[in-house]
Amino acid sequence: MVILGIDPGLATVGYGIILAERGGYKPLDYGVILTPKDARFPERLQMIERGISTLIDKYKPNEIALEELFFNNNQKTAINVAQARGVIVNTCFHYTDKLFEYTPLQIKQALTGYGRADKRQIQSMVTSFLSLKKIPRPDDAADALAVALTHANTARFSSSFGIK
Amino acid sequence: MVILGIDPGLATVGYGIILAERGGYKPLDYGVILTPKDARFPERLQMIERGISTLIDKYKPNEIALEELFFNNNQKTAINVAQARGVIVNTCFHYTDKLFEYTPLQIKQALTGYGRADKRQIQSMVTSFLSLKKIPRPDDAADALAVALTHANTARFSSSFGIK
Repeated sequence: MVILGIDPGLATVGYGIILAERGGYKPLDYGVILTPKDARFPERLQMIERGISTLIDKYKPNEIALEELFFNNNQKTAINVAQARGVIVNTCFHYTDKLFEYTPLQIKQALTGYGRADKRQIQSMVTSFLSLKKIPRPDDAADALAVALTHANTARFSSSFGIK
Repeated sequence: MVILGIDPGLATVGYGIILAERGGYKPLDYGVILTPKDARFPERLQMIERGISTLIDKYKPNEIALEELFFNNNQKTAINVAQARGVIVNTCFHYTDKLFEYTPLQIKQALTGYGRADKRQIQSMVTSFLSLKKIPRPDDAADALAVALTHANTARFSSSFGIK
């Protein structure tokens, strides 16, 4: 099964595509979609839409997992990231209804069994699960692989995506 | 010139379409796109996308004006409304780059000349500008007409949409 993991953002959208098989996991691709700060906001949304569509066309994922938004204190940033995430959710849902989401806490627990794991511990587990030689860069790509692995590890138990 | 005004939301998206001519303004249509609370979140986003697309296809607006998000204290609601707004912006931008946005303050000032005008004063100005017999309902439709009228009144001076 091919799983696309996405770490939503406006300036940087992380993605990670893994092949989950009986024997383990293989990374197929990972990286980031970047949008320039000097582009108009709607243009940045379209770059994200095109980037996600291109990944979907290329890898035809069976299931897609997104990280839930992390609320931070900068409301303007949070609102803009949320608008980008709306476009990502909609783009993915055009392709499949097998769309899932996980909180940062769920990701930590799924990958390390420990809800207070730090970024390095998560990245180290991602590297280990995927038998990579070094930690995937940039961080947003590693985060996206983490959410894909979380889904692979917990899909049996998780209910389908649906912000209530 | 046909102007589509939109008051973004997740459960309720207000829309108002006006014809702005040299002599004044005429309402062409107004109302709301509703999405049921028991539908999955991505389905609600798609209902909004379809609703906006249908309006665009039908009225072929020359320009589109959106209300900026009002930040409120319920972060979960704000984040979900922002995700819906991202889909709206993206859908509109596929159709035209003549996309503009106005804050609640700008709308109040444009329609009443007074930044602390209340909802009734705004609705009363909308009713008067459009020569309607009564205040347009529901409120979100009136708000959407207000943003369309704001754009019609200020378009000469406003710069193009672009959250920085």
